[in-house]
Amino acid sequence: MKRITFLIVITALLASAVGFTAPASQPGDEEAEPIFVTKIPSGYRDWKLVSVAHEEGDLKDIRAILGNDVAIKSYRDGKLPFSEGAIVGRIAWRHVPSEENNKVFGREQSFVAGEAPPWYLQFMVKDSKKYSATGGWGYAQFDKDGNPGPESDLKKCFPCHQAVKDRDFVFTRYTH
Amino acid sequence: MKRITFLIVITALLASAVGFTAPASQPGDEEAEPIFVTKIPSGYRDWKLVSVAHEEGDLKDIRAILGNDVAIKSYRDGKLPFSEGAIVGRIAWRHVPSEENNKVFGREQSFVAGEAPPWYLQFMVKDSKKYSATGGWGYAQFDKDGNPGPESDLKKCFPCHQAVKDRDFVFTRYTH
Repeated sequence: MKRITFLIVITALLASAVGFTAPASQPGDEEAEPIFVTKIPSGYRDWKLVSVAHEEGDLKDIRAILGNDVAIKSYRDGKLPFSEGAIVGRIAWRHVPSEENNKVFGREQSFVAGEAPPWYLQFMVKDSKKYSATGGWGYAQFDKDGNPGPESDLKKCFPCHQAVKDRDFVFTRYTH
Repeated sequence: MKRITFLIVITALLASAVGFTAPASQPGDEEAEPIFVTKIPSGYRDWKLVSVAHEEGDLKDIRAILGNDVAIKSYRDGKLPFSEGAIVGRIAWRHVPSEENNKVFGREQSFVAGEAPPWYLQFMVKDSKKYSATGGWGYAQFDKDGNPGPESDLKKCFPCHQAVKDRDFVFTRYTH
């Protein structure tokens, strides 16, 4: 009887531990693998604007951050955490001077969106169950040809996004 | 007879000159006044993205260029001139460093959308008849409170946009 109780407790603890560290893993999995988004969300280029940004350093890009309707609603309502199904995407282009515009302005002042950088698209998809191991968000990035980024890169997303855990892990603020 | 021919020629030349400089004027107008857009087009914040840009110089802004459905269709179809009813808008924000992002990156590299600059919104509205004096586009700008810009500023729009007459006077290219 004691042995049976012991086994039940151990089983419960294990189940709990598995549930905590890797809820999406299947029984029998040796190690819990993070889950990432592997398909480009359809229609993203039609989504509404969240904001814009410009990254220097190694990136040297100019970017638009867009949201699907669920994400935009959460943003506009100031709802945290974001509703299930929310997707935030960012499109990046090389930050390049516009000779055409500069001619009109009469000086070097204008920068526009150029070619796609190596990681053209990034997304975070809200699904609290599926992506519970990474704060309820699944991460993804794609090159211009639609090829997904390597898992080694994607594993860096969540640790970095923890800096804004109080905003449900979303860096970009909606700009009115 | 010579005198009558002379008068006809002069009248024709005058009509032509008036037609060239101010085709939207009505018969009897003393002076043709340019026509500008005085109301913010409704729903612009929900429009689809055309592209993004960054202006230095006196502007120091980061901006999103959006289009209503008619404009986006013309852009995507590569249709020139733009269809009647097309509206291209741009929202500008101060180009400001993001301390929050820089902390995460570990260096100064990130710029985001800050406060509204003096001229927060600009639009060009396609109506070939109404705005025939300015290439078929009506121009507008508004501050954050929705106040329209002075006509003295708006009169500068069309002369400048003539630099891209071959793209139907629209500077911004759609970026895929």
